[in-house]
Amino acid sequence: MSKQSLPLSEVYGLLEPGPVLLLTTSHLGRANVMMMSWQTMLEFEPPLVGCVVSGNGFSYTALDKTRQCVLNIPSVAIAAQAVACGNVSGRDVDKFKANGLTPLPAALVKAPLIAQCFANLECRVVDTRLKNRYNFFVLEVVKAWVEPDWRQAKTLHHRGYGEFAVDGKLVKLDSKAR
Amino acid sequence: MSKQSLPLSEVYGLLEPGPVLLLTTSHLGRANVMMMSWQTMLEFEPPLVGCVVSGNGFSYTALDKTRQCVLNIPSVAIAAQAVACGNVSGRDVDKFKANGLTPLPAALVKAPLIAQCFANLECRVVDTRLKNRYNFFVLEVVKAWVEPDWRQAKTLHHRGYGEFAVDGKLVKLDSKAR
Repeated sequence: MSKQSLPLSEVYGLLEPGPVLLLTTSHLGRANVMMMSWQTMLEFEPPLVGCVVSGNGFSYTALDKTRQCVLNIPSVAIAAQAVACGNVSGRDVDKFKANGLTPLPAALVKAPLIAQCFANLECRVVDTRLKNRYNFFVLEVVKAWVEPDWRQAKTLHHRGYGEFAVDGKLVKLDSKAR
Repeated sequence: MSKQSLPLSEVYGLLEPGPVLLLTTSHLGRANVMMMSWQTMLEFEPPLVGCVVSGNGFSYTALDKTRQCVLNIPSVAIAAQAVACGNVSGRDVDKFKANGLTPLPAALVKAPLIAQCFANLECRVVDTRLKNRYNFFVLEVVKAWVEPDWRQAKTLHHRGYGEFAVDGKLVKLDSKAR
C-alpha cells in the first residue's frame, strides 16, 4: 500500500471541505460500504467528526454494534463506483466486489480501508447521545492514511439527486483561521 | 430584494455540499458575522442543521442568548469579504461596514440576511444537548431565500489556513440518493 500516515492534527483539512465519503464497516464477518455526505468536524485534535448514518441500513447496525468504522474519501476518478455504493443495500450484495473496490486491513479497527480512495480515516464511536434523535454518531479519528499526492485530489460534493460539484481551482486567501 | 423563497424541502441541497457559510446574529442591538465551515445536515424536513460555533467569540454568545441566526452562503465572487469576516472579532468592529456587506431584515428572526450572499437561511436553535461538550448547536431552518440563479453559484470549501477549493464542474451520476 502506497499510502502514508497523516498526522491527526491535519485530518480536519480533509473533511472540512465537505466531500462525499464512503463509510466502511465490518460486522459479523461481513464488510460493507455506504455513501455519506452528512458529516462535520467537531474538534481539531484529537479529530472528532459528527455524522448521520441512516437508521434503516446495514451500516447503521454495524456501526452501532461494533463502534468502529473507516471514513474513506473518493476522488472524482472513482465517482461512478462511489455512487453505485449508495444504490443498493449491503444486505443484498457485496458492494466491494460489485463495484470493483478493494478492501484492505486497517491498523486499529476491524472495518476495512478502501484501496481506491485517496484518504482513509480509521474511527471509533465516542459519543452516541444524539444517536436516537438524529442517527448522529460522534467519531474519533484514531489513524489517518493518505496517498502522497492527496492535496491534488478532486473531491465530490453532493447537491442532491446524483448531482455533484467537483472541486475546481484552489484559491489562497489571507485568513487567520486554522 | 431580488431573492425568492426556496421550499424548505430543498434546503439540504444548499448545505450538503459543505460550503463555507457566514453566520449572522443580532444581540443587544448589535449584528455580527462569523465565517463557519463545521456544519452538517441532520434532517431533510423540517431542515435541521448541526453546527459548531467557537465558544470564545461574540457570535457564540449571541446565538446562545437569542437562539436565532441566519446561515448565509457566499459565492466565490465575495470570497475576500467572507474571509475577512473571520479575521477580526465582532467585539472590535462592525464587520458589515468593514467588509462592504449589507444587512437586510429577515422575515422570521432578528439576525440579518447578508444581501451579497446568494442564499440566506433563517434559523432557530432547537437542541443544545451537545453545546457544552462540542459548542454544537442544532438549528431548524424556518425560512430560506435564494437568488434566481442560485444553482450556478460557485461556493467555497475550506481546506485549512485560508486555502479554499472552489466548485468546478457539475456532474450528474446515476444515484438513487435523494
